[in-house]
Amino acid sequence: MPKDTPRGTSLPDSRRTPRFAGVNTFCRFPMLGDGPAAEIDPEQLDWAIYGIPYDGGVTFRPGARFGPRAVREASQYVKPYHLELDVDIAATLHMADAGDAPVRPYSTRETLEAAAAFARELGNPGRTKLLAVGGDHSIAYANIQATWERRGRPEGGLPLLHFDAHLDTVDTVWDEKWTHASPFIRAIENGLINPKRMLSVGIRGPLNTASDLDYGKAHGVRIITARQWETGEGIERMDDFLAELGKDEVYLTFDIDCVDPAFAPGTGTPCPGGFTSNEALELIRRCAGIRLAGADLVEVLPDRDPSGSTALLASHLLAEILALDALASTSA
Amino acid sequence: MPKDTPRGTSLPDSRRTPRFAGVNTFCRFPMLGDGPAAEIDPEQLDWAIYGIPYDGGVTFRPGARFGPRAVREASQYVKPYHLELDVDIAATLHMADAGDAPVRPYSTRETLEAAAAFARELGNPGRTKLLAVGGDHSIAYANIQATWERRGRPEGGLPLLHFDAHLDTVDTVWDEKWTHASPFIRAIENGLINPKRMLSVGIRGPLNTASDLDYGKAHGVRIITARQWETGEGIERMDDFLAELGKDEVYLTFDIDCVDPAFAPGTGTPCPGGFTSNEALELIRRCAGIRLAGADLVEVLPDRDPSGSTALLASHLLAEILALDALASTSA
Amino acid sequence: MPKDTPRGTSLPDSRRTPRFAGVNTFCRFPMLGDGPAAEIDPEQLDWAIYGIPYDGGVTFRPGARFGPRAVREASQYVKPYHLELDVDIAATLHMADAGDAPVRPYSTRETLEAAAAFARELGNPGRTKLLAVGGDHSIAYANIQATWERRGRPEGGLPLLHFDAHLDTVDTVWDEKWTHASPFIRAIENGLINPKRMLSVGIRGPLNTASDLDYGKAHGVRIITARQWETGEGIERMDDFLAELGKDEVYLTFDIDCVDPAFAPGTGTPCPGGFTSNEALELIRRCAGIRLAGADLVEVLPDRDPSGSTALLASHLLAEILALDALASTSA
Amino acid sequence: MPKDTPRGTSLPDSRRTPRFAGVNTFCRFPMLGDGPAAEIDPEQLDWAIYGIPYDGGVTFRPGARFGPRAVREASQYVKPYHLELDVDIAATLHMADAGDAPVRPYSTRETLEAAAAFARELGNPGRTKLLAVGGDHSIAYANIQATWERRGRPEGGLPLLHFDAHLDTVDTVWDEKWTHASPFIRAIENGLINPKRMLSVGIRGPLNTASDLDYGKAHGVRIITARQWETGEGIERMDDFLAELGKDEVYLTFDIDCVDPAFAPGTGTPCPGGFTSNEALELIRRCAGIRLAGADLVEVLPDRDPSGSTALLASHLLAEILALDALASTSA
Amino acid sequence: MPKDTPRGTSLPDSRRTPRFAGVNTFCRFPMLGDGPAAEIDPEQLDWAIYGIPYDGGVTFRPGARFGPRAVREASQYVKPYHLELDVDIAATLHMADAGDAPVRPYSTRETLEAAAAFARELGNPGRTKLLAVGGDHSIAYANIQATWERRGRPEGGLPLLHFDAHLDTVDTVWDEKWTHASPFIRAIENGLINPKRMLSVGIRGPLNTASDLDYGKAHGVRIITARQWETGEGIERMDDFLAELGKDEVYLTFDIDCVDPAFAPGTGTPCPGGFTSNEALELIRRCAGIRLAGADLVEVLPDRDPSGSTALLASHLLAEILALDALASTSA
Amino acid sequence: MPKDTPRGTSLPDSRRTPRFAGVNTFCRFPMLGDGPAAEIDPEQLDWAIYGIPYDGGVTFRPGARFGPRAVREASQYVKPYHLELDVDIAATLHMADAGDAPVRPYSTRETLEAAAAFARELGNPGRTKLLAVGGDHSIAYANIQATWERRGRPEGGLPLLHFDAHLDTVDTVWDEKWTHASPFIRAIENGLINPKRMLSVGIRGPLNTASDLDYGKAHGVRIITARQWETGEGIERMDDFLAELGKDEVYLTFDIDCVDPAFAPGTGTPCPGGFTSNEALELIRRCAGIRLAGADLVEVLPDRDPSGSTALLASHLLAEILALDALASTSA
Repeated sequence: MPKDTPRGTSLPDSRRTPRFAGVNTFCRFPMLGDGPAAEIDPEQLDWAIYGIPYDGGVTFRPGARFGPRAVREASQYVKPYHLELDVDIAATLHMADAGDAPVRPYSTRETLEAAAAFARELGNPGRTKLLAVGGDHSIAYANIQATWERRGRPEGGLPLLHFDAHLDTVDTVWDEKWTHASPFIRAIENGLINPKRMLSVGIRGPLNTASDLDYGKAHGVRIITARQWETGEGIERMDDFLAELGKDEVYLTFDIDCVDPAFAPGTGTPCPGGFTSNEALELIRRCAGIRLAGADLVEVLPDRDPSGSTALLASHLLAEILALDALASTSA
Repeated sequence: MPKDTPRGTSLPDSRRTPRFAGVNTFCRFPMLGDGPAAEIDPEQLDWAIYGIPYDGGVTFRPGARFGPRAVREASQYVKPYHLELDVDIAATLHMADAGDAPVRPYSTRETLEAAAAFARELGNPGRTKLLAVGGDHSIAYANIQATWERRGRPEGGLPLLHFDAHLDTVDTVWDEKWTHASPFIRAIENGLINPKRMLSVGIRGPLNTASDLDYGKAHGVRIITARQWETGEGIERMDDFLAELGKDEVYLTFDIDCVDPAFAPGTGTPCPGGFTSNEALELIRRCAGIRLAGADLVEVLPDRDPSGSTALLASHLLAEILALDALASTSA
Repeated sequence: MPKDTPRGTSLPDSRRTPRFAGVNTFCRFPMLGDGPAAEIDPEQLDWAIYGIPYDGGVTFRPGARFGPRAVREASQYVKPYHLELDVDIAATLHMADAGDAPVRPYSTRETLEAAAAFARELGNPGRTKLLAVGGDHSIAYANIQATWERRGRPEGGLPLLHFDAHLDTVDTVWDEKWTHASPFIRAIENGLINPKRMLSVGIRGPLNTASDLDYGKAHGVRIITARQWETGEGIERMDDFLAELGKDEVYLTFDIDCVDPAFAPGTGTPCPGGFTSNEALELIRRCAGIRLAGADLVEVLPDRDPSGSTALLASHLLAEILALDALASTSA
Repeated sequence: MPKDTPRGTSLPDSRRTPRFAGVNTFCRFPMLGDGPAAEIDPEQLDWAIYGIPYDGGVTFRPGARFGPRAVREASQYVKPYHLELDVDIAATLHMADAGDAPVRPYSTRETLEAAAAFARELGNPGRTKLLAVGGDHSIAYANIQATWERRGRPEGGLPLLHFDAHLDTVDTVWDEKWTHASPFIRAIENGLINPKRMLSVGIRGPLNTASDLDYGKAHGVRIITARQWETGEGIERMDDFLAELGKDEVYLTFDIDCVDPAFAPGTGTPCPGGFTSNEALELIRRCAGIRLAGADLVEVLPDRDPSGSTALLASHLLAEILALDALASTSA
Repeated sequence: MPKDTPRGTSLPDSRRTPRFAGVNTFCRFPMLGDGPAAEIDPEQLDWAIYGIPYDGGVTFRPGARFGPRAVREASQYVKPYHLELDVDIAATLHMADAGDAPVRPYSTRETLEAAAAFARELGNPGRTKLLAVGGDHSIAYANIQATWERRGRPEGGLPLLHFDAHLDTVDTVWDEKWTHASPFIRAIENGLINPKRMLSVGIRGPLNTASDLDYGKAHGVRIITARQWETGEGIERMDDFLAELGKDEVYLTFDIDCVDPAFAPGTGTPCPGGFTSNEALELIRRCAGIRLAGADLVEVLPDRDPSGSTALLASHLLAEILALDALASTSA
Repeated sequence: MPKDTPRGTSLPDSRRTPRFAGVNTFCRFPMLGDGPAAEIDPEQLDWAIYGIPYDGGVTFRPGARFGPRAVREASQYVKPYHLELDVDIAATLHMADAGDAPVRPYSTRETLEAAAAFARELGNPGRTKLLAVGGDHSIAYANIQATWERRGRPEGGLPLLHFDAHLDTVDTVWDEKWTHASPFIRAIENGLINPKRMLSVGIRGPLNTASDLDYGKAHGVRIITARQWETGEGIERMDDFLAELGKDEVYLTFDIDCVDPAFAPGTGTPCPGGFTSNEALELIRRCAGIRLAGADLVEVLPDRDPSGSTALLASHLLAEILALDALASTSA
């Protein structure tokens, strides 16, 4: 099979295994490593989806270590054909659930190293893209690092498309440099992310102080606040950013707390005034045309998600992100 | 009392029986059959509201058999005067709770037959309209069949106004022709519904395959997707459909999963990206002016409704549907 | 320190006491009366926030007596800098949690008297403004009375900015004149509120009868229904009202049930079709420029709030209300 | 049919109406007043089960006004044949759900009067016994009063078998004489209950003061604490009490909070260290042989009952209480 | 490796994969079929644990189709060394999670056939024993059938050790012979189970009629009611039954509803008065010394299990059952 | 006031502040440091109750950092008179809520140091005893250390009375020596606890390996397993241990997971087969006569406690522990 021919993903036969049956994998994708040869060809793998069940970096409520488990369960009802973008992710992309990265529950730094080392080797490093499911936002650093290395260590760092209620560029919390409030300041410092090509969408108050956004602004990070999105003034700025990206690969990071607590109560630092689920889906769809380097989805906390809506939305967002790549793939 | 004089509905005296007291009936309406003559006159009855507590047709999560019970309880706080449409349903319509249809829990087909037979005889067949509360969407078939028969077996079938996340025209699931994914393909095949006069509002992905909507499209069903509603392009098409209806009676079927999981988590196949409660209410109100043949509201699953919002919304939607008829009644 | 210099509010050092630690006070403000002199200067106090844990005035579901407790807990994550209005409430205003007013659990009338007597003496009556947290809406009367007295007993009564699903001008319920459906008819009758300067935003049906709004309309109360807000026709009328206020102090009362049950399920008489959290926040922010006489936030019922979103939103609304005053304070 | 021949109770045909279908009545018994003549003969009625949805007498958490509704729902799965006592309650007793008593939500005293007046007339006052479902424990007074009057106003008052964590003989709470802490002091004062023939089982600490039990002890009330039941020293004392009763009718009052919060979390003043469900059932069964004058079951609070276990246990306890009478009836 | 040498089970390295990480398999056992050769040797497999996610046989509340999924998740914290019986199941037995059997969601009969066909081939039919996780109790029939065939079709049927609140020997429900109330009448009729060697433990009322237990009694089934266990009169009878078994293999079926709703609320037909968790564990441990032919654990319904205690207890009971076999294995 | 005269504790006047009102402190005790002189005399303080909101030491589910907050709230209904032991804790002991210790959320070791430093200075070090509320079990070390220092650094370490499902003497987890599985191995190593005078009650399986208890056994720790308690063989051994203590002060540590998940679901590593609430209360009461050096209660995790029973039981256990000291105090 020639390298660039989409190979597709074999899903369970729903006549034999209904969506409420079987061991949960992300979106019912086959497991990388465990499946028979017919199901997965690591060399041809387009995406490895894996969990990083770590929440030691939080500043308020822990529990996101159970996020990958909850998203795997909720994703059993995700279907492969994207009606609005007219693309079938399973027909287009060769995808696998790569399991969970090893974690070191008492150290964010050690966890990031272990997870990055794990991610570095998944599938075909020259081809396979990485989609990490958190865990708290600290884990984004590990996936960004592995992605940056595997995508050719682009100079100046990767562009970043960042959906979040918080800017996450706090230098230290309780004297610690590796927390869920700090992944992007670290990624910028270490050259993995280019702050001048970073857009943060959904930021909203209240904040601890007026200076909380200073670092980002000083380094050229562009911000669209939740309110600016509501009033419509954010759309043009987002479109400009997307246009500037051109053919360059961009890393996408999605903190579920950019969504309003009515739609995503299951998260550690919920903040009223966020996106609706429709807006969240639309934000991703608006990115149709971009090329992804990798992505993550973080901060799902199932113990605060009594109806399961948060994990369900998160699992649909995974499919939305993959649909962007499926679209790029078919239009390539 | 002349046949066409609105007789109204006697509600409990809230000075004696507060809304948290008494045996639950739909919207506190009197029970058909059990009430003293003063409360219900079957000959004059405008609407019989009844439950079909059946969920054997589901493809994923069961539990909607408890839907009628939950809607009865939540509807205790529904009040009769519709502020936005300026009509009082209890002053205008003679309504009753007709109890629950008999069900055959191990067979969808037998349940549909039993429920249709039950519905066929309720109240005054020549006058009383039927509002069924599910149960899963398979039960719509029974109420459509009884309605079609009682409204004079209109040739070509009844027009259908359909609110749903899913088109429900799947031929078979696990070799079964009678499921909650199939009520409308069966109703079209059997001439109860006219596909050329059918509008489905709220459809959204993801789907199993791109061909999922082919049957509907091939038979002339019109579709307004959730996204088309968000972008505004659906309104004109809906208004056109309503205008075409003219004075013809239309059957209205409302699957609560057309609403977003934030507003209606309590359903069996929730899908992010649906209507807000405001949009759902507005969709019904936009139909002011139509003439109803009958209606149903389905797929409320109370075990997944921790705050009760789903059943509450459903009970308000019942009142919205009845308000359409009250309006038609007063303007007649 | 000169009287009009903002003194600010000392918050706990989060390096020592994370937001999940310590005894809960509203927004982590110091306790009035208990704190060391350095923390609170009663003479300089700008706002006393206090609870009135009473729900004996409800007509349906009780439990709002636990509202102050839930709001105190949820407010631990409220931060002081308001991004959208660019004002830091803790830097600008000297605020304290004044504890809970005494209540008389078996009598609304006695509770209102006890609470008003308590509120009358808080901080510096000539300076300190009162923000009451309910409890059911009946308690608003007590805070309005104390506010009216402390702000110089303005003739004709205070203007009222009222956010609610219900108009709350019912004369009696079960023969009782003091209930959560009646605070404003009593306040109007007793000259505490000027109905000609009263705006009620968010009113929606269904109602018991078409005449439910008659008292308000007859006395000049202006109403913007939820639907009018959705369609955009309410904005201008609200802006007109705000403009008419000029420099006059207005009392703000916020019943959480004006918000939709998806965003605020934890309330006693929820009604579908309300504001989103974004709309609720925006409604307050639109009032930027007004001068507050006092305020209350009522009807949070934690037993119906499984994910805590209601109490969280309520605690953010407290900060929004205080931000209005902080803004007036800095622009004065 | 001769007066003393058991007439039995017609239950719904479960082949037509499964236990998850139909309007909820207590244990699926027919409604008194609404049913056709064939179902209920008021003259022959053995038991009227009715709700008193009132919780205005509580000292801590309200919500038990929803108790009758929750017990009706949970009781749908109660079956009529009592395996352990070998008696079929539906075959033996003619029973009906008499609906809910009228309540006056703002006054315990007025509610008790209205409920007693309602109960006084139910069925055949000379034959029909009263089983009231609360509501908070204050409502026991109304049912005791009506029972006492209907059973011939026995001099000195009725004997009382009282299962509870609390003695409920507090004179006043917040100056009020009619509360859920006071029903028995009032019933003793007014000659409805004979304190020398009163046994309270399940009392446990902690208490406000050592003197809390003084009134009861001074008047001859016998107490078996929860701990005394655990250690076994209560059994003989209970058996003595039962033996003393002989053929005299006794009133049974069951506060669900005598059961441990693991088994009955849904109550307003839960206290660890109570009975298991097995012990609770066994306590009633141990009374086999007594003659009941009437009974009540109170303090079920569904908002604190996430799995529904409390209402389920309560509905089984209703059947246990009725089984005592069925047994007395068949052995008579 | 000689055939009868215990091979043990390789569990994940918890230094790499904490118990909150990784794809959920029963008790973290490796997957049959998917694992590398080093992890599973089908020929040597002692136990195949698999799910049958089917609930179409219920008579009341559905949802147990999600039981296998919930038990897999809850079993992540189950550890292999059994302290009380002093045996390490993973060191002694070679075990695997065999995934879920295929189901036919609309037909109990077809599901039983499909599941039995699946189970028949698992691992090494001559060696591997089958532990099925439901699903509703109807699925026991499939596992019993496959077990009976694989264990040499013992004449007269297998002995049965049955823990349950219900006897499950109802002939038909709603005219259907294959339901969760009927597995054992069918198994007896078809010679798979020997009723004279069947013991049912935990049976309790209330029942529909006094005749509900007649079939079992007439065929020699022995019954120990829940109450008989409480009073101690059941122990000797259970010990007699165990002694009679001698070296014969017995099939063990465990319906979680034999446990009290306080300990196991998550089930479809909960009934107060059941075993405590300690009693349930002790019942299994008392069987130490028996030889198992196979086993099942059924009726876990996660939607009614708000704290997860039911699934947790169920997962521990799986380990208890396996410990019986580990013990027999080491003492052989 | 002479030093040894019990000074008592002033509780809020419940006529003014019902138990659902006011800022939550442990058992409604006054705050140390904030209260007016009349309420607290630090020199005379008998007990300082304080929280350590830390859960960074867990090996499975985090969230116990919210334990102190939940216990404060649940303890509002705890009353001071202990019926069974006939002692009034508020009349006998001078007690205060000392707030929460400072924590370092990313380091167990630093947290233990900060908490011990905080505890070391509370009240009158020569008199005031320390009762810490966790938080995970790692925090016990801090309170033990501060207690040991304040009680005169007894040579060989303090005796320890330990209630727990787990022995908590694991050397390291994920290479870390300071975890919730390790407090007692560290306390023994550092001479704070005397293993020969340590009794662990409630230990139960399953365990990771048979060797998990080796360290404890080798050092002379006595163990009463949950099963030994059920069978009665533990009582004598416990009484022996208590008798040996004589007049020596003992430290009591209570991990809520020794209680069964039915009674205490809200904990991080629940294990079926634990104590009932009655057994837990009785275990403490059985210790009547001992002299306490200090105590802690840990591992309450409110996010898994849907009905609040866990926090309620925990708050009652605090009162039970204090009652032991009140008893010793009055009998001194």
